[in-house]
Amino acid sequence: MTEDNTPTYVSKGQEFARDMNYIPDRILASGSSLDPLDDRFPSGSKDSPRDVQVWPVEPGRYRLVAAKACPWANRAIIVRNLLGLEDVISIGLPGPTHDKRSWTFDLDPGGVDPVLGFERLQQAYFARFPDYPRGITVPAMVDVPTKGVVTNDFPQITHDLFFEWRDHHRPDAPDLWPDDLREEMESVMQRIFTEVNNGVYRCGFAGSQEAYEAGYDRLWTAMDWLEERLTDRRYLMGDAITEADVRLFTTLARFDPVYHGHFKCNRNKLTEMPALWGYARDLFQTPGFGETIDFDQIKAHYYVVHTDVNPSGIIPKGPSLEEWHSAHGRS
Amino acid sequence: MTEDNTPTYVSKGQEFARDMNYIPDRILASGSSLDPLDDRFPSGSKDSPRDVQVWPVEPGRYRLVAAKACPWANRAIIVRNLLGLEDVISIGLPGPTHDKRSWTFDLDPGGVDPVLGFERLQQAYFARFPDYPRGITVPAMVDVPTKGVVTNDFPQITHDLFFEWRDHHRPDAPDLWPDDLREEMESVMQRIFTEVNNGVYRCGFAGSQEAYEAGYDRLWTAMDWLEERLTDRRYLMGDAITEADVRLFTTLARFDPVYHGHFKCNRNKLTEMPALWGYARDLFQTPGFGETIDFDQIKAHYYVVHTDVNPSGIIPKGPSLEEWHSAHGRS
Repeated sequence: MTEDNTPTYVSKGQEFARDMNYIPDRILASGSSLDPLDDRFPSGSKDSPRDVQVWPVEPGRYRLVAAKACPWANRAIIVRNLLGLEDVISIGLPGPTHDKRSWTFDLDPGGVDPVLGFERLQQAYFARFPDYPRGITVPAMVDVPTKGVVTNDFPQITHDLFFEWRDHHRPDAPDLWPDDLREEMESVMQRIFTEVNNGVYRCGFAGSQEAYEAGYDRLWTAMDWLEERLTDRRYLMGDAITEADVRLFTTLARFDPVYHGHFKCNRNKLTEMPALWGYARDLFQTPGFGETIDFDQIKAHYYVVHTDVNPSGIIPKGPSLEEWHSAHGRS
Repeated sequence: MTEDNTPTYVSKGQEFARDMNYIPDRILASGSSLDPLDDRFPSGSKDSPRDVQVWPVEPGRYRLVAAKACPWANRAIIVRNLLGLEDVISIGLPGPTHDKRSWTFDLDPGGVDPVLGFERLQQAYFARFPDYPRGITVPAMVDVPTKGVVTNDFPQITHDLFFEWRDHHRPDAPDLWPDDLREEMESVMQRIFTEVNNGVYRCGFAGSQEAYEAGYDRLWTAMDWLEERLTDRRYLMGDAITEADVRLFTTLARFDPVYHGHFKCNRNKLTEMPALWGYARDLFQTPGFGETIDFDQIKAHYYVVHTDVNPSGIIPKGPSLEEWHSAHGRS
């Protein structure tokens, strides 16, 4: 924060570090239990299973609050679609821009979420933890009866939508976490997270030229690895869509409209990498993906919220995005 | 200026307007005279011929001060090369970044221009006009004996290098201002100036979303016009290079490295417009053009000097620029 309480994203002289300390509660199917050997709780983790409160799977009970602008929230919106959970878990959609008190329901009639009755997502955090000290982030699963947030742990949320809500999936829901690929998939997802999903922020919020250049080199090393990987595979793990694709897709959709210019990830556009660009369009044109992408909200979010990167708040008109609908030639 | 004397480029709520009030002096060949009907002095102009001091063409007398970073100065460097005036008019090269007192000779040994003995171009302006009130700009023609600036009127400088220094041109110098094309060329250059050369600044320094969007639409209307014009012409005026090409080229060379991201001119990259991109490479690979382009200085200038557009001062590593040397297929 600066003196006038404007949020700051760039820490001068520093490398960007994401606060990964989320609310660790889980929503579990009956019969499911926390596994103390779960790799969610490696030795040395701040949380342990005994800090985690377990909530029951219950259709209609929870509201997923997920701004379309946010790549981490976008994952949950896509997974909910792919698995056919739209009638089981409702969705609240904050607008793209926010102030220092974070996300608001400014797109809803009267500026109020119609189910929770809140103007701000912050109210759901405070309903549960009156002194909640950390960032008010999306996605957040909110318990509708108590209006309190259950968890905002984004990788756990999509994991649990798959493993814990199986009884409510659509009959033809994809297997987003195939057992036989799980080990390789975890390592692919880890690299995508540190180098790409978070890698673009490492470029954009770098506090020094050196930190930026190191971030840029890391990002493009990973982008080249992905380009090569996707040259002879339709999807990241082979012939079928998995959670790994969802996680990469939400960053790719933001690449040219935002990360290329605003975050200075500008070695080339996504459109200049044939395999990645074909892959991104292939997913975009797959039901469950493209309809969750709102390029205007995406651009508005980054260019307006990060006032220390873009003080004018002006949102670029470009790039031209019609090509997202063009033939990808990958099926 | 802001309170701490940092220069500002964006005027909130305003459309960007360039101060075109330059020092109108001319360096003329003997026998040349000011023509009161010259379209340099339209009725209503602030200057009239009687305000203009005339200086004599004299080899070795003048020093062209022209930062490689600056597109307006870059024009004069190219024209001096094309006409073979390197031994007749010396050149001083300020570094790419500057402070509120403008351009400095920080790249020279000891930070001093070896001919003028100045640390700052400002000193040449003050040597002539002790209270010079306007911007200290490049290009500037400086009279070496008195160390005073003669003129900084950039379109007049390149015009006069051609028309007034003919006796000193190389034998095979190109005809940059062909008589039979003059009328059409003036109108092409005028449109390029207002819509493209200055059009990118209108986007980048817009003080409101509305001013930016209007600037963006004007720019891309002109870019589409140029793309079409260059589809069936090798150069802007036909088969030969003219002053109009020089004026367009210095903006195109900065397009992808700077204007696309920094100034939000991002409908597409230059590399995505086949005729313009082939044309730009054709010129780049023509002796006199490409060797004047220093992409590192260009990027450093814009990203460091415009602190109100890019507060971090971080300079993007991209884009990849090797393709400037690739075959253009236009000869």
